[in-house]
Amino acid sequence: MSCDFLALANLGVQGLHPYQAGKPVDELERELGISDIVKLASNENPLPLSEQVKAAITAELSELSRYPDANGYHLKQALASEYGVTAEQITLGNGSNDVLELLARAYVSTQDEVIFAQYAFVVYPLVTQAIGAKAVAVPAKDWGHDLDAMRAAITEHTRMIFIANPNNPTGTFLASADILAFLEQVPENIVVVLDEAYFEYVEQSERADSINWLQRFPNLVVTRTFSKAYGLAALRVGYAISSPAIADILNRVRQPFNCNSVALAAACAALQDKQYLAESVALNQQGMEDLVAFFEQHNLAYIASKGNFITFDTGRDGQQVYQALLALGVIVRPIGGYGMPAHLRVSIGTTAENQKFKTALAQVLAL
Amino acid sequence: MSCDFLALANLGVQGLHPYQAGKPVDELERELGISDIVKLASNENPLPLSEQVKAAITAELSELSRYPDANGYHLKQALASEYGVTAEQITLGNGSNDVLELLARAYVSTQDEVIFAQYAFVVYPLVTQAIGAKAVAVPAKDWGHDLDAMRAAITEHTRMIFIANPNNPTGTFLASADILAFLEQVPENIVVVLDEAYFEYVEQSERADSINWLQRFPNLVVTRTFSKAYGLAALRVGYAISSPAIADILNRVRQPFNCNSVALAAACAALQDKQYLAESVALNQQGMEDLVAFFEQHNLAYIASKGNFITFDTGRDGQQVYQALLALGVIVRPIGGYGMPAHLRVSIGTTAENQKFKTALAQVLAL
Repeated sequence: MSCDFLALANLGVQGLHPYQAGKPVDELERELGISDIVKLASNENPLPLSEQVKAAITAELSELSRYPDANGYHLKQALASEYGVTAEQITLGNGSNDVLELLARAYVSTQDEVIFAQYAFVVYPLVTQAIGAKAVAVPAKDWGHDLDAMRAAITEHTRMIFIANPNNPTGTFLASADILAFLEQVPENIVVVLDEAYFEYVEQSERADSINWLQRFPNLVVTRTFSKAYGLAALRVGYAISSPAIADILNRVRQPFNCNSVALAAACAALQDKQYLAESVALNQQGMEDLVAFFEQHNLAYIASKGNFITFDTGRDGQQVYQALLALGVIVRPIGGYGMPAHLRVSIGTTAENQKFKTALAQVLAL
Repeated sequence: MSCDFLALANLGVQGLHPYQAGKPVDELERELGISDIVKLASNENPLPLSEQVKAAITAELSELSRYPDANGYHLKQALASEYGVTAEQITLGNGSNDVLELLARAYVSTQDEVIFAQYAFVVYPLVTQAIGAKAVAVPAKDWGHDLDAMRAAITEHTRMIFIANPNNPTGTFLASADILAFLEQVPENIVVVLDEAYFEYVEQSERADSINWLQRFPNLVVTRTFSKAYGLAALRVGYAISSPAIADILNRVRQPFNCNSVALAAACAALQDKQYLAESVALNQQGMEDLVAFFEQHNLAYIASKGNFITFDTGRDGQQVYQALLALGVIVRPIGGYGMPAHLRVSIGTTAENQKFKTALAQVLAL
């Protein structure tokens, strides 16, 4: 009899249910035999790639038989200059998913506890479980983080706390002063990860001054990404900014070539293209207003969002509504896995994509 | 007093010394202020990118704001067809480094032992140490794997065995029959990872029928890469072929978007471009003969290699020779970290690159 290689795997790994990505357009095309599909399922930037990024990638083509720069020299220099930090404070990741996983693997072990909020980004419980550590999901308040309850959940075993701001999939947002007050109360031996994947969509006046907080809180790690407002989801570039000591550790765990050469070159170019960023944010704001007006017009409950997506209550089984939208060529994201079976999350698209979504949803819900 | 975030990291992680990548050309340019540098340090394919791959990447540019296909559908289909396996047997990695790490993280925990050979690829001890497991480095025989000694090193705690064939950095090669005999003797609850990163450089008649062995040995995992003969080192695509059960587990641990979209598209195209592959292998064979003749002519001891690199004994401090070659604009790889302080590893380049290396080495060693 041969061995059971499921049962032989490490305990935390055996129980893992892999991250469910948004359904790819070509997968739905294969299944339904239809085209003209709109994907509003993965909080992607609906604009086409920046021309400057295209040029940077094309310039890189002659070098692709060479390994990437393991230290990401140029991108770290550009990020350091952008944020007023040193290159020694930066850890590059294959998307911010990679950085979140590196943090857990570096600082958390089986006997430790990791705190995050109910309805917070699913990667936090995933990286915790992969290690076999104890996940402490603190009940949400109004779909968002309850920082008082999260503070109260800290024990002597707590090693890491994840905060998503804005949060995915709910879009909820914590005021800067509240996060600051929380940081002041967390014991300094606990690593606090402030995941700001959607930072660029937040209005300037409301943004946390999180990178400047690093000087006061050596246990703080701020993570951001090029996958959203910078429009590079396909290329996988995220980063952490932290104290040099934490960055040193993360860079020891990191795979040496975790960001590939095309990704590094594209991210450098994207960081310089401020016009693309501004257009992305403006398009998002306009689409968000459009969808909010639609939900209000039809008395559909929604969760106010600061991200590039909005989550609404279908008032029935969300999975069925999701399937019905699929059949009409509109892919959104069911979030039953988050314990929100009646809700769906829809990413803000172009004006035409939003229109197609509204039309399809009105048909499915008979609005 | 603030906390020490080096000391707070997990024990295995604290002791990690990150992988030392080959020195990038532009780093040496910055340091020395010279150009016309030849890099023969990272076992890269010296040919420029395949035109078919270029076209595939260019075709992908319009889609880069979208997340990659988390399941790598098209590449898995292509690999399954190429090797006569099913897509369920394949795990894609961000380079084979990623796959090697996934294997260790899935099946090895702190109390376990991992066996590999002295002078074998440095990623094996790195992934073992990151977990905090016990690394068992079995003394080499003639710079290569001593399979009898490796078998004798198996204990009840052994969970994984890494075999590199050909091995990097020594280029040594195990005959197919010897590996097969070894597999027959390994208890079936131990995962044996056969790392064939340099497989395509081995002559057809000498290649192991390793993928067909999977039917007999459900504990066998074969890993390969697009970074070498396929010429895509910059893009990071490696893969494991195994039993579906092991692939299932690896895919649970894997980050959902570990291969980016450009990498997936490029690998699909590279797999089809058999002419590029044949040219790469032929150029390598020619360069290998050239360097071997040079070493023999000058009575420099070298280790016969089946890879796209060759390791030779400088007869003095290898690090000093390395530095002297750098000053002449030739980057090779010192391997003192492998316990081979007098040796240097040089990748096979183009005819012109090999010539520049020979000229520089002759000058440095006063041959």
